[in-house]
Amino acid sequence: MASLSPAEQEARLRLHALPEIGAMRQRLLLDAFGSAAAALSAPASAWRALRLPAVAADARRSPETRERAARALAWLEAPERHLLCLGTDAYPALLAEIADPPPLLFVEGHLAALERPQLALVGSRQASAQGLDNARRFAHSLAAAGFCVTSGLALGIDGAAHQGALDAGGATVAVLGTGLQHLYPRRHLGLARRLLAGGGALVSELPLDCTPQAANFPRRNRIISGLSLGTLVVEASPSSGSLITARLAAEQGREVFALPGSIHHPGARGCHQLIREGAQLVESVEHILDALRGWLALPATTAPAPVEDDPLLRHLAAGPLNSEELAQLSGQPLPEVLVHLTELELAGRVAASHGSWTRLG
Amino acid sequence: MASLSPAEQEARLRLHALPEIGAMRQRLLLDAFGSAAAALSAPASAWRALRLPAVAADARRSPETRERAARALAWLEAPERHLLCLGTDAYPALLAEIADPPPLLFVEGHLAALERPQLALVGSRQASAQGLDNARRFAHSLAAAGFCVTSGLALGIDGAAHQGALDAGGATVAVLGTGLQHLYPRRHLGLARRLLAGGGALVSELPLDCTPQAANFPRRNRIISGLSLGTLVVEASPSSGSLITARLAAEQGREVFALPGSIHHPGARGCHQLIREGAQLVESVEHILDALRGWLALPATTAPAPVEDDPLLRHLAAGPLNSEELAQLSGQPLPEVLVHLTELELAGRVAASHGSWTRLG
Repeated sequence: MASLSPAEQEARLRLHALPEIGAMRQRLLLDAFGSAAAALSAPASAWRALRLPAVAADARRSPETRERAARALAWLEAPERHLLCLGTDAYPALLAEIADPPPLLFVEGHLAALERPQLALVGSRQASAQGLDNARRFAHSLAAAGFCVTSGLALGIDGAAHQGALDAGGATVAVLGTGLQHLYPRRHLGLARRLLAGGGALVSELPLDCTPQAANFPRRNRIISGLSLGTLVVEASPSSGSLITARLAAEQGREVFALPGSIHHPGARGCHQLIREGAQLVESVEHILDALRGWLALPATTAPAPVEDDPLLRHLAAGPLNSEELAQLSGQPLPEVLVHLTELELAGRVAASHGSWTRLG
Repeated sequence: MASLSPAEQEARLRLHALPEIGAMRQRLLLDAFGSAAAALSAPASAWRALRLPAVAADARRSPETRERAARALAWLEAPERHLLCLGTDAYPALLAEIADPPPLLFVEGHLAALERPQLALVGSRQASAQGLDNARRFAHSLAAAGFCVTSGLALGIDGAAHQGALDAGGATVAVLGTGLQHLYPRRHLGLARRLLAGGGALVSELPLDCTPQAANFPRRNRIISGLSLGTLVVEASPSSGSLITARLAAEQGREVFALPGSIHHPGARGCHQLIREGAQLVESVEHILDALRGWLALPATTAPAPVEDDPLLRHLAAGPLNSEELAQLSGQPLPEVLVHLTELELAGRVAASHGSWTRLG
């Protein structure tokens, strides 16, 4: 469906605001009644028949429910704020495919970021200097290759991933485990602002005023992996929440990548566990691109053509260009251009910086 | 067959001494004529029919062939020198299963070492200090768990593996890429002597007087992997010969294990390549024991019983014992005792040192 009527959008927000009604029950109601508006006006007996708690059915017409929906609508009036509802065209296609998709997502920032191919990059909050550096480097290269880097805005690896993508001039998406009005951790407020200024987006399925609660973070992880073609775990102890994200990615049929480390480095143990469970061991971004070739329906890597024959290198002879410009000029699809640019980068023929590609030598 | 007659043994040595007749052609001749003696007395036309070179058929009765066989027989007269012929009971059972088994093996040292379950531990000649330390530690633990550690006596990881096994009081086998009269590298002459004194063995399929030739080392690797239930690669560059050993192990249907390392450590790249090809990522000896449980037909790890109920701990209460003594005292099969001891070691209940087990606490 292209989009919802304003009335149905408001009804979805009311459903979302009801007590005891989570993602699964919202989807149950939408399936049973066909729309949120129909669910809200259905007799209480129909809700009982679906084994839904009376407290939820009773709260449908409470002033509090109305007010919560009204507050969300007011929040949405500011620029660059969006409500993405499951079943509409704007809802991220990959996320809609998972077993337990959020019925709605609040988004602050640029929807274009959610339309790019996304790769999740996650890891421990307590990371080593080397782990943080690896996260920044991989995020930088993935962003330069045209991926939107998705993570959780947490301290440690998540933050370094967002930063690395920003450093490459790429868009990055942060999926929060709080409402968008309670950004957490506060120490990453500046990072969130830079993310928004860099064309990225903040995403949450939680009520806007939802404060940090431990139980919400693991469920948030299914959105990080669900938005993404694959999840890369950079450094993680066996107890890290990023292992949950990786296992959810595997359950969702997405690729799981993990960076190895020394057997004497405790921060590598979670990654090693994932590799033993079937995750792909990754040493370079090239490994990730190779694995995603199938997803992007791209031909296998071939040696770059001689400079004079390579259309991208020909276009870059006139000066730096970004990948969209190259796609337009060359008439090639963007994903193919991105992979080809990465191959040229690995061959030392081009360099990426702040979202533009420069021809070398 | 229990063993060969002295005449057939001498005939096998003569076949082995012929020019242009390698392992494959020796097996072809044995299959075609039923014995080495029959092959040696067959008409030259029968050899031509098998497309064997005339120079080989002609050399059967040359003085040089007789002399080479005689010199080998003379070498075999000294103590602890053995000739193991394919098809006899003394020939290592696992090695007989590979696609291209050596028709004969010269052995110096203790045949008992070849009768134990063997695990190959290999890696780069140019290894880091950490790599050498890892090799020593894994070899020590594997030897303490009852495995014979098999390697190639090369500088670097191989040497550290033999040393680690010796430090644990375990037997270790070195498969040479030279004849046993030309031990190589010379720098490991002392290590070879300690290996022999420690109940181990030196093994080679090559003529006793064969000098170091680059072409012989990769083929030697099939014997290292072929003797072993599995091959562990500790540290290896992508060009290391130990990757050949690991790939041969995989082709032979044996387990392949590799230690991960930092993505910034070139010495880890070969291991990472193997893991990407399907080798098991290993952080501890426990991972290896878990994987070999199927081979050894052992039950899955269970929590150790309380001290008073555990038969091994009861026997160790009287003082240190080695694993064979424990097997005898407890009436349990040796492999089961070995795995159980390793579990107790991991649980901090026993410690291994110089081949004996001591109860802790």
